Amino acid sequence: LHVPYKPLQMSTKEVIQRSREYYDLMAKRRTVRSFSTEPIPPEVLENIIKTAGTAPSGAHTEPWTFVVVQDPNVKEAIRNIVEEEEDLNYARRMSRQWVADLKPFATNSSKPYLCDAPALILVFRQTHSMREDGKKRMHYYNEISVAIAAGILLTAIQYCGLVALTSTPLNCNARLRDLLSRPSNERLELLLPIGRPHPDTTVPDLERKPLDQIMIKVTSGLNDIHSGGFCVFCVDSFFSGGVDYSCDAVAGGGADYNCACVDDAKHT
Amino acid sequence: LHVPYKPLQMSTKEVIQRSREYYDLMAKRRTVRSFSTEPIPPEVLENIIKTAGTAPSGAHTEPWTFVVVQDPNVKEAIRNIVEEEEDLNYARRMSRQWVADLKPFATNSSKPYLCDAPALILVFRQTHSMREDGKKRMHYYNEISVAIAAGILLTAIQYCGLVALTSTPLNCNARLRDLLSRPSNERLELLLPIGRPHPDTTVPDLERKPLDQIMIKVTSGLNDIHSGGFCVFCVDSFFSGGVDYSCDAVAGGGADYNCACVDDAKHT
Ligand SMILES: Cc1cc2nc3c(=O)[nH]c(=O)nc-3n(C[C@H](O)[C@H](O)[C@H](O)COP(=O)(O)O)c2cc1C
Ligand SMILES: Cc1cc2nc3c(=O)[nH]c(=O)nc-3n(C[C@H](O)[C@H](O)[C@H](O)COP(=O)(O)O)c2cc1C
Repeated sequence: LHVPYKPLQMSTKEVIQRSREYYDLMAKRRTVRSFSTEPIPPEVLENIIKTAGTAPSGAHTEPWTFVVVQDPNVKEAIRNIVEEEEDLNYARRMSRQWVADLKPFATNSSKPYLCDAPALILVFRQTHSMREDGKKRMHYYNEISVAIAAGILLTAIQYCGLVALTSTPLNCNARLRDLLSRPSNERLELLLPIGRPHPDTTVPDLERKPLDQIMIKVTSGLNDIHSGGFCVFCVDSFFSGGVDYSCDAVAGGGADYNCACVDDAKHT
Repeated sequence: LHVPYKPLQMSTKEVIQRSREYYDLMAKRRTVRSFSTEPIPPEVLENIIKTAGTAPSGAHTEPWTFVVVQDPNVKEAIRNIVEEEEDLNYARRMSRQWVADLKPFATNSSKPYLCDAPALILVFRQTHSMREDGKKRMHYYNEISVAIAAGILLTAIQYCGLVALTSTPLNCNARLRDLLSRPSNERLELLLPIGRPHPDTTVPDLERKPLDQIMIKVTSGLNDIHSGGFCVFCVDSFFSGGVDYSCDAVAGGGADYNCACVDDAKHT
């Protein structure tokens, strides 16, 4: 069954204004590694997880479980597991280069924030589920879908003024899954302490890549051909960078380029 | 170098209010498969991609490239490739069950929206980059990081009142990468047509899972033991569901549970 889609109805002016306002707010997000113990109102936890649950997912399989831990004993148990594994990770499992690459973040195997933060959200990914007839239901693209939901979760946290630490505890999946009695079709994807920042929190003084390094605008076939690109008509025989093939049709008729597909009927 | 973190400073009342407001807005997001051709102001495209670029990433590697296509010829070339591959996907590459699971979405290999939408954003994932000394720089957790950035991108699109279609064109990576002259360290992760919805747009009448199916609150070790869980003190010998082990300390002293670790010095 399909139903009419009701759009938000924003004017172009609003669209521009809101895209700017939202960027300004999200640009202030930082990964925080030191938390105040101030509790989070239950409704807020519920709202941000409900928000994550609005994510798109392959074939609408919604392959996520958000386990929320606030109990001090359980937080401590999680901390013990993660610190034990991280000791081994830093000492043995991670390459020397990896450990070197983490230097700027001043991270190590000690994770007091796993006890300090008022809540931990453990994001589990369901590889499949069971149909009513007992058959396996595959969760297509479950990795991407769950990480998209996590991205939406992070924006919800930022929007309401809280902070989080995005982490992927290496080698902790089996132990944390057992600790939390999660079923075998689930994998731990992310562990997110969430709360208010500790008043003395510092963060690495990072820069983000400027727009021209992350956004590539393909505005005209012509430009791309000049930069060693492709002929938009010769889709079947696309050329990779460097080769100076192109065709009159694409170059606008004026230039003197030769194209592998120049005899094709499509070309003038 | 670390610098002080400047928090957003919201009152608890604001936190609650904003978490609610944000959920309400994001809950209205839908995947739209039919677009108006109305162009998107360039600043809006820039702002939403800048917003995606605020995402966290493993070791701050920022492993994403957002290729924006607005040129009609290039859109058509993309459409040709995707439709050709989708013909094969539906006919041969996807399992029968997969095709059946897609029935509710009424999708097929025809993708007019790839030409209608004013812009296509192709999200590429960089598996690695090059250091200044010419050595490979690994992009740790690049899959998760890029999908998180895509989740943030989708919220930016929703926040400013535009719509998108999240898609993962199966088997199109090599051809689209070549078409767009992307380097060999990049993989196509997602293809997102973005714009305004066509006035006649319909969407599948889907429900989302209720909160209690996606959020599991672990509030007390006790409850979890009763549900066949774990003993928070016996972290080393965690039990998975079903086994009725636990210990007095956790059960609150009153109940008559036996625990594998009951002799451990930690227990009373
Ligand atoms: C990783 C991923 C891949 C998807 N691939 C497609 C696709 O190829 N074609 C399509 O029409 N929808 C695709 N979708 C959209 C889903 O079908 C859609 O998110 C789901 O049905 C839920 O609907 P909603 O997004 O409107 O809430 C994809 C979504 C995700 C997250
Ligand atoms: C998939 C993923 C895994 C991460 N793992 C860790 C982690 O284990 N420990 C940690 O302190 N930070 C971790 N981070 C946070 C990154 O270091 C951080 O996002 C990056 O340095 C950029 O800083 P920002 O988030 O403040 O912009 C992770 C981020 C991502 C996306």
